[in-house]
Amino acid sequence: MKRTKYCGEIGEEDLGREVVLCGWVHRVRNHGGVIFIDLRDREGLVQVVVEESVNPEAYNVADQLRSEYVVCVKGVVRKRPPGTENPKLKTGMYEVVGYEIEVLNTCEPLPFPVEEETPVSEELRLKYRFLDLRRESMKENILFRHRSYQIIRRTLVEKGFVEVETPFLTKSTPEGARDFLVPSRLHPGKFYALPQSPQLFKQVLMVAGIDKYFQIVKCLRDEDLRADRQPEFTQVDIEMSFVDEEDVIQISEELVSNLFKELLGIDLKRPFDRISYAEVMERYGTDKPDRRFGLELVDVSQELKETHFMVFRSVLETGGVVKGMNLKGLSLSRRELDDLTKKAQELGARGLAWIKLEKGKLVSPITKFLTEGETNALLEKMGAEEGDTIVLCADSRDVVNKVLSSLRLQIAKQYGLIDEEKWDILWVVDFPLLEWDQEEGRFVSVHHPFTAPRQEDIPKLEEALRAEDPKDKIKLVSSVKARAYDLVINGEEVGGGSVRIHDPKLQKMIFDLLNISQQEAEEKFGFLLRALRYGAPPHAGIAFGLDRLLAIMRGLDSIRDVIAFPKTQKGVCPLTGAPDYVSPKQLRELHIRPVTE
Amino acid sequence: MKRTKYCGEIGEEDLGREVVLCGWVHRVRNHGGVIFIDLRDREGLVQVVVEESVNPEAYNVADQLRSEYVVCVKGVVRKRPPGTENPKLKTGMYEVVGYEIEVLNTCEPLPFPVEEETPVSEELRLKYRFLDLRRESMKENILFRHRSYQIIRRTLVEKGFVEVETPFLTKSTPEGARDFLVPSRLHPGKFYALPQSPQLFKQVLMVAGIDKYFQIVKCLRDEDLRADRQPEFTQVDIEMSFVDEEDVIQISEELVSNLFKELLGIDLKRPFDRISYAEVMERYGTDKPDRRFGLELVDVSQELKETHFMVFRSVLETGGVVKGMNLKGLSLSRRELDDLTKKAQELGARGLAWIKLEKGKLVSPITKFLTEGETNALLEKMGAEEGDTIVLCADSRDVVNKVLSSLRLQIAKQYGLIDEEKWDILWVVDFPLLEWDQEEGRFVSVHHPFTAPRQEDIPKLEEALRAEDPKDKIKLVSSVKARAYDLVINGEEVGGGSVRIHDPKLQKMIFDLLNISQQEAEEKFGFLLRALRYGAPPHAGIAFGLDRLLAIMRGLDSIRDVIAFPKTQKGVCPLTGAPDYVSPKQLRELHIRPVTE
Repeated sequence: MKRTKYCGEIGEEDLGREVVLCGWVHRVRNHGGVIFIDLRDREGLVQVVVEESVNPEAYNVADQLRSEYVVCVKGVVRKRPPGTENPKLKTGMYEVVGYEIEVLNTCEPLPFPVEEETPVSEELRLKYRFLDLRRESMKENILFRHRSYQIIRRTLVEKGFVEVETPFLTKSTPEGARDFLVPSRLHPGKFYALPQSPQLFKQVLMVAGIDKYFQIVKCLRDEDLRADRQPEFTQVDIEMSFVDEEDVIQISEELVSNLFKELLGIDLKRPFDRISYAEVMERYGTDKPDRRFGLELVDVSQELKETHFMVFRSVLETGGVVKGMNLKGLSLSRRELDDLTKKAQELGARGLAWIKLEKGKLVSPITKFLTEGETNALLEKMGAEEGDTIVLCADSRDVVNKVLSSLRLQIAKQYGLIDEEKWDILWVVDFPLLEWDQEEGRFVSVHHPFTAPRQEDIPKLEEALRAEDPKDKIKLVSSVKARAYDLVINGEEVGGGSVRIHDPKLQKMIFDLLNISQQEAEEKFGFLLRALRYGAPPHAGIAFGLDRLLAIMRGLDSIRDVIAFPKTQKGVCPLTGAPDYVSPKQLRELHIRPVTE
Repeated sequence: MKRTKYCGEIGEEDLGREVVLCGWVHRVRNHGGVIFIDLRDREGLVQVVVEESVNPEAYNVADQLRSEYVVCVKGVVRKRPPGTENPKLKTGMYEVVGYEIEVLNTCEPLPFPVEEETPVSEELRLKYRFLDLRRESMKENILFRHRSYQIIRRTLVEKGFVEVETPFLTKSTPEGARDFLVPSRLHPGKFYALPQSPQLFKQVLMVAGIDKYFQIVKCLRDEDLRADRQPEFTQVDIEMSFVDEEDVIQISEELVSNLFKELLGIDLKRPFDRISYAEVMERYGTDKPDRRFGLELVDVSQELKETHFMVFRSVLETGGVVKGMNLKGLSLSRRELDDLTKKAQELGARGLAWIKLEKGKLVSPITKFLTEGETNALLEKMGAEEGDTIVLCADSRDVVNKVLSSLRLQIAKQYGLIDEEKWDILWVVDFPLLEWDQEEGRFVSVHHPFTAPRQEDIPKLEEALRAEDPKDKIKLVSSVKARAYDLVINGEEVGGGSVRIHDPKLQKMIFDLLNISQQEAEEKFGFLLRALRYGAPPHAGIAFGLDRLLAIMRGLDSIRDVIAFPKTQKGVCPLTGAPDYVSPKQLRELHIRPVTE
């Protein structure tokens, strides 16, 4: 018997026809003399009916069936008897009268049910991933991902992009994270690094004249696995020649719009919003704001600049800020406010001030320290009205932004302020090029060292290199903007890119500012520097985190649910047991010895 | 200035129009007052003309240009003056009168020319891959490869295949080759293995109900780099459920036919030939025959079974064979025959006998030892005629096949017998399932341990497991055929696959025959065995070596020419310098120490 159709595709055109179906027993019920089998394959479910009186042989086989047995059924399609239709099921108007059943394989008792999506520990789900992936929602995640690949490639190929594979065994790329290393057998003591991204290769491809490149590619970073990271993840990688940021933003918006349109049926409004880094930091305290709800940060430093309230005054005098949020229409209890304060302290704040506008009065532990003018100015700036609660945080700008942006998210989740039907998509632009790293005592790249500064800012960099006073240097460099852009959806960064440096002299200048010696630059990025000297075109690009993007689009909390075979938070694959011990012979051949004291 | 068109696309519709072109200076010639620039981009070349008298400013810029400078040119398209057209060039009827030129980047003196494809050492080509890839033929290889990806995916997606990514950090898969290992930082002393192929994962996906899977995926094997191997290579990986070998062969033929049709304009005759392993070994001495030329192997053991010629007799008496080739129409000199004999000896033969039919006479060192009847029977069997040369080899069947199949190829190349216009495509089928490994003293899989035997041969395997006498066991097992198939094009294996075992009991039987203990099987393939117990459907698949397939289609000797960034034969990337030393800190974090005495 050979399959003639998928179960999920049985329809009007099959009525009265013989079909052969193959799949898994989703459910089986014996109603005394009649057995109903919900037969499932990738495309869906269909009901198979086997009657003892009509097909005793098939009935006897059907009677042995258990959940998740693999069977092949021959039968005839008919309409379900009136009143027994199942309108929730795509094939729910029909059933297959089965008269020949072959059991292709059995199934041991299940560690968790496939037919119902009861919660199961992630460890168990991953160990039995072959069962987990049979569940409807996971199967849909995998098919969704499959469709996304095709849409992405079609969009880019139509625009003249060329798909090129870059190597997996390579040299460390300077993405800042830790490399996975691969010992070389042929070159004792030497190591390959797995790619953190194809950044340098794609730039080399531009120098090679490929003009427009893309790749959907695995990247690997040996980072500490925070909340929702994976050691290997998939990037949609794009690079273009003879273009500026506008071109990259155009193609990116087209790509994301096509995905939303074709996968979710949603027309995104284009062009996407663009907001400067300075503005998002001011209004949301983060460079990846979620604007599906309000709770914007308001700077009231100006309103309080003369205050005698020492908590604020000391902060303002030392260059800090006072910023707050108006929890519009939320009247928080004392206990809720205490919890928020505790959370703020965990995030690094010294405390959290608050003011409630309740029954025409102000309730607050701090208003007594403020003048009426200060209080009124503050409340007016924050648009405070009866029933609102105001929270205020005073500290360095960095700490205030960090604390309030976190509280903002938490409050929004806790009080259901997020409109889950909404899609908030924006570009964050005008990032600083470099920032001063207090700990390391040097500048570091905000994106990566190949990001171009704005043309008009280059003289500032030259001046900074000549500056004697470190303060002047920091001031000059801090004002230099990068030609970089990040795409943020619902408060998560899903892509980022930049116009690259194509002038070897400018690249050297950046390395100088980053305190990277010529020798170090040669060692680490020598091949890019060499490429830039041999006719590098102006170029720019972007990379999207596909796992993250798909998880957001599917409304999933974890990227692990859009990856067929993910690792746990500890970097373990419960399905295969990787990583694992290897034989002494393997280690000898690789010229390494484990050190595990 | 922003590009309006690719250089290579200038055509009739642009006449009289202003265009902006961006690209590289392919060639530049100053004809006193008129400068001709061949401007090149990914899509081709166009001639730009700059006249001093008309555009002195642009002329002065053009006068500074050198090879591979990057420029942007604004100008107007016109017909080339009569007599100056270049019909070899796609844009050869037109030229662009340039009146504004911007130099976007310069280029240092080239290590080798880009405009002419002079031979360059591979080391230098790879070090300056960004220049090497600008050369026309290499650029075409990369674009050819790009197009192949799209054709492959379109073909498979249309047939309902689902693209799924499988992990890179995983556990050793049992493909027989050496694994690349990745030390785990979070799990001291443990290692991930990079995938030699997604074999087990794709089988797990079938158990998960994905039904039809494909992926174009990098695979990594730490093999000794023979002639034309790469440590990382690309596989077109396919797996299907509820199918047999016929379905896999169908989709494979469609895939290959689409590639030939769309990339080379060649209609392949379908179905492709299928020849059994036994027959190709008999006729060509190899399981990947090149049938673009004759020189078939002929077994003359039967004709010589009574011979008194000791060289042959001793071989035949000990189970060996005498096989030969008729070098049709080739009258080899004594010296050429000596060279062939030497080559045969290098390949493991004790010698090579020969007979020439020259001027109505037999010239041979061996005919004097044969009876006239034997000689005549032999010559008749081999279809020998005036002008032919016969070579004969006597030894064990394995040695004879190895020697003659190698000589066959060498003779064909040396004497130009290969019809380079021809495509020889065939399936080799009916492979043995297992073969006895004399060295290891056990059976080994001819394909891999998950390959299904023919249904009718399963009783033989059961009998073999029960057999007491090792000879009986070997005889029984050797007669078992696998449900495997290899695709061979022009004498190179480009793909191979099989119907897989989906019955855990049968899988265990195979492990037993392979002398793999239950514990070892559990450790190595535990997750597959587990998967088989939970409702595994019948499934089958195939994998194609994409690099090899593309190299053959492009008529290239080396797969390195279809890979953007390949490694040398020593596993080195001259572009990046990988592999390289890493810092002691990195090694400490990975809990390993190099051992390099």
